[in-house]
Amino acid sequence: MNILGIDTATMVGSIAIITEHQLIAETTVNAKTTHTERLLPMLDQTLRAASLTIQQIDGIAVASGPGSFTGLRIGVTTAKSLAYSIQKPVVGIPALDALASQFLYTNVLICPLLDARKQEVYTALYRNSGDRVHRISEYAVIAPKNLLHALHEPTLFLGDGVLAYRQQICDVLGNQALFASPALMLPRASLIAKLGLDRLLTGASDDAFALTPLYLRKSDAEIHWELAQQSIKRNSNE
Amino acid sequence: MNILGIDTATMVGSIAIITEHQLIAETTVNAKTTHTERLLPMLDQTLRAASLTIQQIDGIAVASGPGSFTGLRIGVTTAKSLAYSIQKPVVGIPALDALASQFLYTNVLICPLLDARKQEVYTALYRNSGDRVHRISEYAVIAPKNLLHALHEPTLFLGDGVLAYRQQICDVLGNQALFASPALMLPRASLIAKLGLDRLLTGASDDAFALTPLYLRKSDAEIHWELAQQSIKRNSNE
Repeated sequence: MNILGIDTATMVGSIAIITEHQLIAETTVNAKTTHTERLLPMLDQTLRAASLTIQQIDGIAVASGPGSFTGLRIGVTTAKSLAYSIQKPVVGIPALDALASQFLYTNVLICPLLDARKQEVYTALYRNSGDRVHRISEYAVIAPKNLLHALHEPTLFLGDGVLAYRQQICDVLGNQALFASPALMLPRASLIAKLGLDRLLTGASDDAFALTPLYLRKSDAEIHWELAQQSIKRNSNE
Repeated sequence: MNILGIDTATMVGSIAIITEHQLIAETTVNAKTTHTERLLPMLDQTLRAASLTIQQIDGIAVASGPGSFTGLRIGVTTAKSLAYSIQKPVVGIPALDALASQFLYTNVLICPLLDARKQEVYTALYRNSGDRVHRISEYAVIAPKNLLHALHEPTLFLGDGVLAYRQQICDVLGNQALFASPALMLPRASLIAKLGLDRLLTGASDDAFALTPLYLRKSDAEIHWELAQQSIKRNSNE
């Protein structure tokens, strides 16, 4: 079973193909070119490297958020279009779950952080038990300071939020702050693909028409639109 | 500091560029094309994706073995040639150390296995303490059966040896056998690059002329050559 994973939740773009037991190919790029430019060429390159065609993909998993609004829209739209074209199931996987899923067989608290701009991070807390990692909190968008002061035990941080707030994490948590290796720090599509595979094996899939990103908060465009509408209303009431 | 990682110790070819805190780009391919064909194009692709040139690389880390004889020769030769050309340091990193290095903050025994053909695996045992993973045995080439019967505690297996011997591992160890996720199962060049970076930061580097692969046992070509020589000697003594 060949599962295609797509992750564009952050600045990092990643495409992977996995089977039940192993990675077949993966391309990850953390650079300033936009996902719009690079996603399809990366997909094509990765399939070619694996000597596969898109028709040989049995299911698609995509990072569904939270994360960058534009990134998520491009990733989810691409995944839905591909799934529709090859008539295969698609599943959306929360980007934070995928980051945390790397830490099996560990007993520290796991705290992925994705930079949400505006001095906030997207986060959730996770614990491992056996060969699964379980989410033990709601997904949240929160100021790092408020999150960090609520943590009182050794905690493993990862995600691009660490790159932005590493010093603050160390200042608050001291030697209880643990960090993932650079090789495990950022999103990778094989992690999305693995969680997608688990869901597809249970028979679950999302409706290719209905699948939408998990945003947690409104985009700037939506906020501006609402403010504009309120202002129009106010003006018409005057 | 941009560190280039190269891993061709197994069927998997992987190229990565990392800095102290994050991955910049990584390409991993587990497919039947040979390393000779694909390594330089993969390197070129990965550098382009990262918007870097080879002259912007500050150090090179290469999987030095144990592993596939041909794969290791190609990887090590490429790394040495690049390091010589750009006049930057190069370090050889044992492939098993890199696989094990993913498992920080865990208390299970870590046992990477690389398929050594001839019903044997390359292996070593590791334990984590804090933010380092330490090797606690010699590197070995051994029949899986002999290794498995010496293990009496929960043990985390990974590497392409798992793909070949998974059933045997389960038969001997039962529920003490733990397995890495497919996303973490196989070698990745960012793991090599991270251990390389650690060594380079201590000021250590290998001599670009002298660096050789860690083979653990002789290649078939060498064995055949020695047998041929013994046979010539025997014949001339008769």
